[in-house]
Amino acid sequence: MMYNRKFFRNSIITTMVLFMTACSANTASETKEETKLPKVASAPEVTNIIEPHKGLNQPPVPLKMERVGENEVNVEMTSQITDIEISKGNMYKAWTFNGEAPGPVVVVKEGDKINFTLKNMDPSIPHSMDFHAVHAAPSKDFIDVMPNESGTFTYPANKPGVFMYHCGTKPVLSHIANGMHGTIIVMPKDGYPNDGEIDREFVIVQNEWYKYNDLDDMTNGVPTNVVFSTKALKEGQLNTNGTASGLVDTPLIAKVGDRVRIYVNNVGPNEVSSFHVVGTIFDDVYIDGNPFNHMKGLQTVMLPASGGAVVEFTVTKEGNYPIVTHQFNHATKGAVAILKVTKDGKDDGSATMGH
Amino acid sequence: MMYNRKFFRNSIITTMVLFMTACSANTASETKEETKLPKVASAPEVTNIIEPHKGLNQPPVPLKMERVGENEVNVEMTSQITDIEISKGNMYKAWTFNGEAPGPVVVVKEGDKINFTLKNMDPSIPHSMDFHAVHAAPSKDFIDVMPNESGTFTYPANKPGVFMYHCGTKPVLSHIANGMHGTIIVMPKDGYPNDGEIDREFVIVQNEWYKYNDLDDMTNGVPTNVVFSTKALKEGQLNTNGTASGLVDTPLIAKVGDRVRIYVNNVGPNEVSSFHVVGTIFDDVYIDGNPFNHMKGLQTVMLPASGGAVVEFTVTKEGNYPIVTHQFNHATKGAVAILKVTKDGKDDGSATMGH
Amino acid sequence: MMYNRKFFRNSIITTMVLFMTACSANTASETKEETKLPKVASAPEVTNIIEPHKGLNQPPVPLKMERVGENEVNVEMTSQITDIEISKGNMYKAWTFNGEAPGPVVVVKEGDKINFTLKNMDPSIPHSMDFHAVHAAPSKDFIDVMPNESGTFTYPANKPGVFMYHCGTKPVLSHIANGMHGTIIVMPKDGYPNDGEIDREFVIVQNEWYKYNDLDDMTNGVPTNVVFSTKALKEGQLNTNGTASGLVDTPLIAKVGDRVRIYVNNVGPNEVSSFHVVGTIFDDVYIDGNPFNHMKGLQTVMLPASGGAVVEFTVTKEGNYPIVTHQFNHATKGAVAILKVTKDGKDDGSATMGH
Repeated sequence: MMYNRKFFRNSIITTMVLFMTACSANTASETKEETKLPKVASAPEVTNIIEPHKGLNQPPVPLKMERVGENEVNVEMTSQITDIEISKGNMYKAWTFNGEAPGPVVVVKEGDKINFTLKNMDPSIPHSMDFHAVHAAPSKDFIDVMPNESGTFTYPANKPGVFMYHCGTKPVLSHIANGMHGTIIVMPKDGYPNDGEIDREFVIVQNEWYKYNDLDDMTNGVPTNVVFSTKALKEGQLNTNGTASGLVDTPLIAKVGDRVRIYVNNVGPNEVSSFHVVGTIFDDVYIDGNPFNHMKGLQTVMLPASGGAVVEFTVTKEGNYPIVTHQFNHATKGAVAILKVTKDGKDDGSATMGH
Repeated sequence: MMYNRKFFRNSIITTMVLFMTACSANTASETKEETKLPKVASAPEVTNIIEPHKGLNQPPVPLKMERVGENEVNVEMTSQITDIEISKGNMYKAWTFNGEAPGPVVVVKEGDKINFTLKNMDPSIPHSMDFHAVHAAPSKDFIDVMPNESGTFTYPANKPGVFMYHCGTKPVLSHIANGMHGTIIVMPKDGYPNDGEIDREFVIVQNEWYKYNDLDDMTNGVPTNVVFSTKALKEGQLNTNGTASGLVDTPLIAKVGDRVRIYVNNVGPNEVSSFHVVGTIFDDVYIDGNPFNHMKGLQTVMLPASGGAVVEFTVTKEGNYPIVTHQFNHATKGAVAILKVTKDGKDDGSATMGH
Repeated sequence: MMYNRKFFRNSIITTMVLFMTACSANTASETKEETKLPKVASAPEVTNIIEPHKGLNQPPVPLKMERVGENEVNVEMTSQITDIEISKGNMYKAWTFNGEAPGPVVVVKEGDKINFTLKNMDPSIPHSMDFHAVHAAPSKDFIDVMPNESGTFTYPANKPGVFMYHCGTKPVLSHIANGMHGTIIVMPKDGYPNDGEIDREFVIVQNEWYKYNDLDDMTNGVPTNVVFSTKALKEGQLNTNGTASGLVDTPLIAKVGDRVRIYVNNVGPNEVSSFHVVGTIFDDVYIDGNPFNHMKGLQTVMLPASGGAVVEFTVTKEGNYPIVTHQFNHATKGAVAILKVTKDGKDDGSATMGH
């Protein structure tokens, strides 16, 4: 069946919110006293905040996107300093795109020319944009935009896929790990082979957090948190729960029998991901989201740092399906979402902690 | 050549035993005094054992499997507390399936319905079963079975491959890392392309061990041991050396000229694997064991946490072929096996430490 | 277009030099005082040097290769102790092949028989050679060569690809991590599909360094340095900058519009790699360098420890294109190279630190 782009974009179910569970919580009270528990990820140290960022919490600015031609889009984003809740009650004064971390999902079409503007609202640090989805000269097209200035760049998005974007300003690791990462999806012009059979689509982004703005910890340590965020798929739209970050105790929803597609992207900055959905097997996987890179029947897809994939699977019974990285130290640090499957595809309000 | 399932199952050579070498041992006496050696992996601390597990060492209970229809099998497993030797003289009071860690290999056919019973022999902690090979509602079909109780579940195995199974009871990382993991192989109904040419088949499972029942170490530390275990391939059969764990100073055996197939599964819980056989190159690789995911000529196959593969290769000369994860810190911690190739395919009793 | 091997070998542009940048250096002075910087990788401790190696610094011995038949080559290499600069001013008394670490690239043709001689110039420790590219009995063909002795071995290279080689003497991790690793490329007899369109070819090898000769750090620690080296591609040729190691502040060079091919190999010893070129997308990727394992449109290629790939991409604009592992803790530790793209393909002498 041919892929109807127009229909597709309008029909997307964007009920995409995030359930994040502290997997390390004991449910078996019997074991509570006697299991050596992991150190609780402490609230981020309030030290090490750059002076001009102290007390700064810039409200999220919606992503601006406008299609200005059959194959041309204007995209405007901000770099800004915004508090992000990276786990329950645990705030991080993030360096962000548009007040979200990961930033908003940008969706364009294969063959689009992107006219991109970065408004740097950070009063003190230059920032920049490196889209993995485009062909560009990094030393010219991905360069620093100074504090309180704007920069505009134009480049083509000629390859379909699920790509990372991030700030490329030095030290790059600080900029990525402090929150300046996200996903750009370039929809294949001929679609994916199974577009006609897909009932639900979600975007999930995995990233790690480290001690606040601590480049040594980012370089040599282990993450304090590894998290999933869900993002709206529709071109230019913010995530549907209206918050900057997707940290919500609400599951993703699907209906019994649905064929579900997830656009997944591991933005790191350091770790690889072993992406897995409990209770199902991926019918079809497209590595980095390119239809050519087709695999079938995978239990788990290996994502390098920055790598993406399109995974498709079928949910056959009502219930809750945890989504994890099967590197279970990372799942334990937060990288768990729940896909709730109900009879009618509506949230019945039941608890999701059952698994 | 068509795949003859019946013949195949009966003709499997299941001489599968494990050689595990301390790769860090010096062979060059010249370097002994002057190389800064790694800390010896100490015997596991006898602290942190859950009170009801103290002194408990439940004898391995054989896996029960019964084919009850052309496409239906009954599988009964136990969860139990059993001492496992994770390296020479180093015992671990493991949380296990059937007294083995990794648990016994379960082999079914693509299209089978599995009627699964878990007998929880643990007197104190609930356990459960998450088969990556099946379609199921995790919150209903993978749920906890209480201490001293049994639970029965039914689900289909409709995709061929080499899949992980594990306990999914929280904290999941504790249950996996304490030993509750294993491999289920779903044989493709049309076989693998080269079934007719395969002379030997082995199953190798890689897993890591951490400080005893220490969730903090499991979450933030590095493994104390990374090991390979070999398991019997035949449906329902225990590993042939009759021990719970495959820790034996005996090599895998093949004959000069044999085409060897290994079903490999990296059950983690945390680390990825770079699976490699010294002295040969994989002729054919099927990622996650699905015949569709075909690669050729790989020196090393990348396995995500929980990922599997079927690898096939040819041994052209007599001698010992080490099998490793080429992440050599992990090989140094134990993840080395030896494939001994002899003229007639019988063990000549020669030493395998030569390499 | 058919692949013309003869033309191909003669036309290779081997301007392959390395640019390694301390990614952690601050460019934004505003952040300097307030960002918690990583500990500077200190000069290697001068302790822990094996007594007979103290003061030893054997000059690099060029790789010797001679084609002695249509399908037969003689290769002679040395194992020797040579100081290697692993980052600016940071010398490491490496255990090497031919005085380089990584060792020289060996290029042969699919179907070649290799007659290999290892001259062990190390006065105190045995060494050996494990070519991933060949079929051999490790316990006979990859065995130790004693100090000041030579060993000769013969084996076939029947599979095309980008393979690791390394010393296999125990403790293997010490020998690899101290510098005894490199890349052997087996050119496919029918070439790669796009051979006729390739304008530039480079070889890049990624490896990690640990505390000097400290097997505990190699086994349980994190690398002090992760680096890229470039190597000459032509059969038997040393890297073109004439130094033992490729540590030079000079970029790789290409011309606007060039289609570039990189033979990349991650020799570890422990870490996987997420290989990425900023500003472009890989048009074609061949996993482990085998033409059968074809992927398209990858932003990043996942390399297991020891894994290789051929990646091809197009550079469309003048400027500097950083090459990284997108595991950015590793890029921060050094694994960054620069591909400079100019109008005419010549180095215009401009700075490359702009990105």
